[in-house]
Amino acid sequence: MEFTDKAIGIDFGGSSIKMGVVLGKQIIAEAPVIIPKDYPIPTELIKAIADQVNALKEEHCDIKAIGCGVPGFVDTPTGRIHNLTNVPGWVDIPLRDLLSEKTGLPCVVENDANAMGIAEWKLGAGAGYQHLICLTLGTGVGGAVIVNNQIVRGSQFVAGELGQSSINYNGRVGAYNNPGALEDYIGNNEFAIDSQRAYLEAGIEKFIDDCSPAALDAAATAGCEVAIACWDDFARKLACTLANCCWLLNPEAFIIGGGLSNAGNTLFTPLRKHLAAQLSAPFRDHLKIIPAKFSNEAGIIGCAVLALEMADA
Amino acid sequence: MEFTDKAIGIDFGGSSIKMGVVLGKQIIAEAPVIIPKDYPIPTELIKAIADQVNALKEEHCDIKAIGCGVPGFVDTPTGRIHNLTNVPGWVDIPLRDLLSEKTGLPCVVENDANAMGIAEWKLGAGAGYQHLICLTLGTGVGGAVIVNNQIVRGSQFVAGELGQSSINYNGRVGAYNNPGALEDYIGNNEFAIDSQRAYLEAGIEKFIDDCSPAALDAAATAGCEVAIACWDDFARKLACTLANCCWLLNPEAFIIGGGLSNAGNTLFTPLRKHLAAQLSAPFRDHLKIIPAKFSNEAGIIGCAVLALEMADA
Repeated sequence: MEFTDKAIGIDFGGSSIKMGVVLGKQIIAEAPVIIPKDYPIPTELIKAIADQVNALKEEHCDIKAIGCGVPGFVDTPTGRIHNLTNVPGWVDIPLRDLLSEKTGLPCVVENDANAMGIAEWKLGAGAGYQHLICLTLGTGVGGAVIVNNQIVRGSQFVAGELGQSSINYNGRVGAYNNPGALEDYIGNNEFAIDSQRAYLEAGIEKFIDDCSPAALDAAATAGCEVAIACWDDFARKLACTLANCCWLLNPEAFIIGGGLSNAGNTLFTPLRKHLAAQLSAPFRDHLKIIPAKFSNEAGIIGCAVLALEMADA
Repeated sequence: MEFTDKAIGIDFGGSSIKMGVVLGKQIIAEAPVIIPKDYPIPTELIKAIADQVNALKEEHCDIKAIGCGVPGFVDTPTGRIHNLTNVPGWVDIPLRDLLSEKTGLPCVVENDANAMGIAEWKLGAGAGYQHLICLTLGTGVGGAVIVNNQIVRGSQFVAGELGQSSINYNGRVGAYNNPGALEDYIGNNEFAIDSQRAYLEAGIEKFIDDCSPAALDAAATAGCEVAIACWDDFARKLACTLANCCWLLNPEAFIIGGGLSNAGNTLFTPLRKHLAAQLSAPFRDHLKIIPAKFSNEAGIIGCAVLALEMADA
């Protein structure tokens, strides 16, 4: 890869599409695609994306490739989308080939959580690790798994769904009839509802807005015992899944990003405590829990990294 | 590897040491090491093992290397044992170098569950799979993880401890203060105790001997509803951990061995049912659950495979 090689990274979300030109570790230009309120049919949206790519190509020389991260199930080798979570109508779309055809650039399509994980592993907080698990904590819980210095996609390219893994075989039934799915305990909404209940039990009335992660972080930092206990409970549940990853894969580190990770040590301190308490020495002693380096830009950067690797291969 | 190349595989257990000469997929000679009742100090036992290896070397030509599987924590690159579970006194022993020195053969030391997994993956029921998880169900639950066609040892070479992974973040506290460890629910002893309790609740008095896996299999096969329900409960708990492996790694198959797997479809039928019920389509549709090919000989064969690979490298 030449230092002047650039790629376009696209972070395709249910409500926004971010796009950027990436050089090295930096996004040097951003150009979001505006999505009309009535979410258009895939062909129209793909045309809008391709138009934006072509406009960026005119402004920037040396753009070698496109990488596109999508929230759902992709056949990675062919870049064909099987279906997207929360994006109606995106079923069986040959996104890679359509984008390539309309832009003249080689294209790679990847699951969005994997793209974020690749950004952290190649250029971010996980650089240099061979055995690494990256998480994003938000409405849901996403994950990417790196083992033996390789990304793990699995047999159908859907590995890394940490949010669906169970913390209780008798627990709440989740989206796929699966009991005890982690994100049904620690997703943004569930965390807010559980925290509101904890306040009520303590005899304190709180609006749900006062139970946002930011509000609960502020309350815990100010010494509120209810909020501190809520974060401790959150950390204990998350530690269960992280410990399971350790028993299975013995990673060197977890990289944790997403909105909820903005709570910093309000989350990280009890998380490190609970995880250390549940593991034996060889799993625990060298283990690191590290905040993500990238924020919203992780998807764009990870996709651009993949695109340049593919162009070089 | 020449077809005539042979290796010696050693399966080092807490109460027995099995040793065999392996050619291809076959053990062509077995020569267990007798362990005195008062378990001898490591140096004496290593001498007994080396003497047995040297005797086999005299009987068999073309023995290229030794592989030794041990029940515990090994530094794989150096073949140094950190400590062994249930084998007192085996702490910080340079087993690879000591065996090599006393036999003149190159030697590799591996965790025993990994050795069994390698036998299944290279020569057994898991041959041809790139993404595979092997389990042994017995007093404990052991595991080996294959991802991207490579064994996963992890950063400290202790990956694959499926028995310690949690099925309930609020569950029974296990050997390492970890809540809900799988083997504290489905290990041989726990299964027997839970089954005895189920019989009692059904108003049937049973001795603990009638709640061995073999007895419970016979009872379920004969149509006993209590026994059938016990196996269903066993399968539901095991399915929780297997589903977690699927969400994380999206494997093609699970290979299941160990004493409890002798129950065959008494276990496999409810296990397939529960696992399918807890997974979404791309994780479930191509997934296979397969009985192990090898039985007690898996450790010897896996170690011999590793030894020959090392000798060839």
